[in-house]
Amino acid sequence: MTETLRIIPIGGCGEVGKNMTLIQYGDEAIAVDCGVMFPENDMLGIDLVIPDVSYLKQNPDLLKAILLTHGHEDHIGALPYVLPQVSVPLYATTLTRGLIEVKLREAKLLNKTEITTITTESVFEVGPFKIEPFHVPHSIPDAVGYAIYTPAGLVVHTGEYKFDPDPIDGRPPDIERLTSYGDEGVLALISDSTNSERPGSTPSEQIVSEAFEKLFTQIKGRVIVSMFASNISRIQQVINTAAKHDRKLAIVGRSMVANVKMARFLGYLDAPEGMIVSVDEINHHPDHKVAIVCTGTQGEPTSALVRMANDDHRQLRIKDTDTVILSATAIPGNEELVHRTIDNLFRLGANVIYQSLMPVHVSGHGAQEEQKKMLRLIRPQYFIPTQGEYRMLVLHGRLGEEVGIPKENIFIIENGDVVEFDDEGGFLNETVDSGNILIDGLGIGDIGSIVLRDRRLLSRDGFVVVTLAIDSETRELVGGPDIVSRGFVYVRDAEDLLEQAKKRVAKLVRRNKLGPDATTGVIRDSLSQFLYQRTHRNPMIFPMVIAV
Amino acid sequence: MTETLRIIPIGGCGEVGKNMTLIQYGDEAIAVDCGVMFPENDMLGIDLVIPDVSYLKQNPDLLKAILLTHGHEDHIGALPYVLPQVSVPLYATTLTRGLIEVKLREAKLLNKTEITTITTESVFEVGPFKIEPFHVPHSIPDAVGYAIYTPAGLVVHTGEYKFDPDPIDGRPPDIERLTSYGDEGVLALISDSTNSERPGSTPSEQIVSEAFEKLFTQIKGRVIVSMFASNISRIQQVINTAAKHDRKLAIVGRSMVANVKMARFLGYLDAPEGMIVSVDEINHHPDHKVAIVCTGTQGEPTSALVRMANDDHRQLRIKDTDTVILSATAIPGNEELVHRTIDNLFRLGANVIYQSLMPVHVSGHGAQEEQKKMLRLIRPQYFIPTQGEYRMLVLHGRLGEEVGIPKENIFIIENGDVVEFDDEGGFLNETVDSGNILIDGLGIGDIGSIVLRDRRLLSRDGFVVVTLAIDSETRELVGGPDIVSRGFVYVRDAEDLLEQAKKRVAKLVRRNKLGPDATTGVIRDSLSQFLYQRTHRNPMIFPMVIAV
Repeated sequence: MTETLRIIPIGGCGEVGKNMTLIQYGDEAIAVDCGVMFPENDMLGIDLVIPDVSYLKQNPDLLKAILLTHGHEDHIGALPYVLPQVSVPLYATTLTRGLIEVKLREAKLLNKTEITTITTESVFEVGPFKIEPFHVPHSIPDAVGYAIYTPAGLVVHTGEYKFDPDPIDGRPPDIERLTSYGDEGVLALISDSTNSERPGSTPSEQIVSEAFEKLFTQIKGRVIVSMFASNISRIQQVINTAAKHDRKLAIVGRSMVANVKMARFLGYLDAPEGMIVSVDEINHHPDHKVAIVCTGTQGEPTSALVRMANDDHRQLRIKDTDTVILSATAIPGNEELVHRTIDNLFRLGANVIYQSLMPVHVSGHGAQEEQKKMLRLIRPQYFIPTQGEYRMLVLHGRLGEEVGIPKENIFIIENGDVVEFDDEGGFLNETVDSGNILIDGLGIGDIGSIVLRDRRLLSRDGFVVVTLAIDSETRELVGGPDIVSRGFVYVRDAEDLLEQAKKRVAKLVRRNKLGPDATTGVIRDSLSQFLYQRTHRNPMIFPMVIAV
Repeated sequence: MTETLRIIPIGGCGEVGKNMTLIQYGDEAIAVDCGVMFPENDMLGIDLVIPDVSYLKQNPDLLKAILLTHGHEDHIGALPYVLPQVSVPLYATTLTRGLIEVKLREAKLLNKTEITTITTESVFEVGPFKIEPFHVPHSIPDAVGYAIYTPAGLVVHTGEYKFDPDPIDGRPPDIERLTSYGDEGVLALISDSTNSERPGSTPSEQIVSEAFEKLFTQIKGRVIVSMFASNISRIQQVINTAAKHDRKLAIVGRSMVANVKMARFLGYLDAPEGMIVSVDEINHHPDHKVAIVCTGTQGEPTSALVRMANDDHRQLRIKDTDTVILSATAIPGNEELVHRTIDNLFRLGANVIYQSLMPVHVSGHGAQEEQKKMLRLIRPQYFIPTQGEYRMLVLHGRLGEEVGIPKENIFIIENGDVVEFDDEGGFLNETVDSGNILIDGLGIGDIGSIVLRDRRLLSRDGFVVVTLAIDSETRELVGGPDIVSRGFVYVRDAEDLLEQAKKRVAKLVRRNKLGPDATTGVIRDSLSQFLYQRTHRNPMIFPMVIAV
């Protein structure tokens, strides 16, 4: 490899560089983040999606460290899967480290992993890189971006940010630091595109605090607030409001409890002594003294909120005096599940407050005006919009043009694309192996496009298996045919159809007297035609011919 | 049956009364609308969902007519499926009738169906009902609501409406008529809840015209506008703007072409002579003289727009000077497909304008202020919010309370619930059979919860079929075991696993020497345990044992 600088987003499942971005100089590289994505709706049966690190495995000594920007799943969640493949030291702020440790302990990787705690005062070196974390406000405390000094110039990775003047943790954006990088001269800016479709600025977290305050003042019964388990800032907001209104608070759900415990231990969550109680205990307090925080904003079937909505939670039953607040928006693809959850809560008589009714959630990402502000502060020579889907990158790129970056210096790229910088400037080089690695059960990456295609076909029209035995010499039918079918027709009501199919198969075998392989082909063709004619469906058909 | 009035929503797939509502007096009933729903994401392999008319089949002489409110799919689309089950006369306005006839002709039902054309001046009688259609502005011309005089009192069904002061067809809402019903005294109002989550009023269609005008003025290349095939008003807006800017217009897509033809024939679409040309011809005009209207706003894989976005449309290829306008919002559940389509169009270099960027779409349904206005005009004694999901009905019901309807006179009901009115007033009576009838290929209603559950299981972890032959006397293994599996593991990479599974099965058979049924059970238990241990997946397992 020549001594050039390369910037390569490699993880994000459609959102470029959302989960992982490589910054390489010569034969040494660092990665920013290592997160998971939730599968898209057509990734049937898949649990999680992680970045494809083939490029790092093909170049085993390349990666020197992973820098984490903040403690959300889509930025740290793939560490348990990636570290066994590419074992490198991690750098993270205190809270982010705490949340990582929870994961690595569970995966039995904590002892094997070197983690360095950093602060926004840290300056550290990895290979040819000198790195300065800088503070950014996001929907979790202790989030940072990274200023990465490389021999080719300064690269700034924003992490995920908004310019919230009044964030929950009291730490506004570090404008001074960003300005100073701009003054020094930045070669390339890698910046968060999430909200490039939204004009204006994202409202401050304070409007959520105000909505909570208003609601807690009105509500006479229990208040149940649902949110992402890693939304530590939002949890703090509920704690603050509940404390003011003299309500006890129960944290419900395994991941939520673990995160709150960790964040309190590390001093990132501040609750009055004795205020947080167990779920068992909360049921002994009068309703107007009770608040509950839980997960389930995405309608996840196993979450506490969905169990409550279905009236099958072990410890909590919805009452018609309850108010449920959904403090998050539905991730695209989850709308139906979320709506169903809201409907079911209403059916149980609860009042439900969600974003279309009141500002009980705001995004953690800056909108267009903030994105332009970032661009104006950093004034980069080159601009690489990342952490968004393609259209968001395009729109973010346009904002770059608006603030004066030449169009040819803006790279709208996809995962695996390599932006390379040599003496003459930045250009798009060849791509590296990259894609989505799908996790299903214990399997990492063994489910590819073929298995997914089969699952898709099976989900549409099911399958039909016909089994029969033929005598290997006479080729006479000696057993069967039997049929098993699922997902195609309701077998009990379709006895006639399946009986006819069997007769057809038996006749075919008797008439043709072919060997097993030829018989298989003949049966498949004949049956698929017959079944389509009768049903206009195309089940997968598998004849299994045993020669005995 | 006693002589009472019954109001029963029976179709809507989660949206109460969206597709069909029954109004029954004594032993005679009329239905309002007969539409289809698109399947929800977890209704795997289902093409369409239609209302369950079991109640009408159980009472074969009950239904006397179906009144249609407007020509959208979710209001007329189930006629080809329902009429063969319950053959009754239809009442519809001219355009609605035209759109119905397209459907019935295709289904070879047109000759068998009696249709009466009605206008907003009509008054007609069906059984004990005297019926007056009244004009409502919606996103299609010739939409009506119905004032239904019953022996028990006047029932008003709003159809779908907004109080657009300046609609495309030039016909503002008929406030006078609505006021007169209010003055006469209305027993029950059945009203559109779609937008009860939205504060304020829905903007007039004019803002879309203004956005189109602005875009057509700026755009130098081709303009491609995508919308629902039945959005006749929006097509008129494109025609108006394209005509003004001297562009030829091509209509692309089978359903779109059929609707436009019908609407022009009936005088509901007004285009200058020679302006609308074929797709073949449009390619001979210079780009700045070209506009195209097509379907695909929901990311439907076979739609014209999605084919263009995937660069595999037979006649149209996206150019980097094209502008594509998505004049619709994504129906919940379709977001991923819509986003993918937008992303792919951007990838091909087109500019894409969609609702988050410009007001190129507005809803056809009134928001909260309009819903309150309707309630204030009609001043009903009882209020039944319909045409919405449960939460929307709840919120619409609250608006009813706001304008002074007593809470106990507001019925938040589900499909199949019966609101009955006797001398003492309205009350909730028992429910009738109702639900979703799923259409898959030629099958109407043969796919129920069991087939769907199987499709769901297959889509998650696939299946494994093991086939083997045993001697019916000695119970020795004489053929197989063979395995076929799809959707579980990638068979080529899992040879080892499947080989071990086979060996395990062979050993079981040899050791146990059981009959076919017992062998089946033993194999299923053993394999499911073995495969779960190895993969943490739960494929459906089917042992097929042939005794020869």
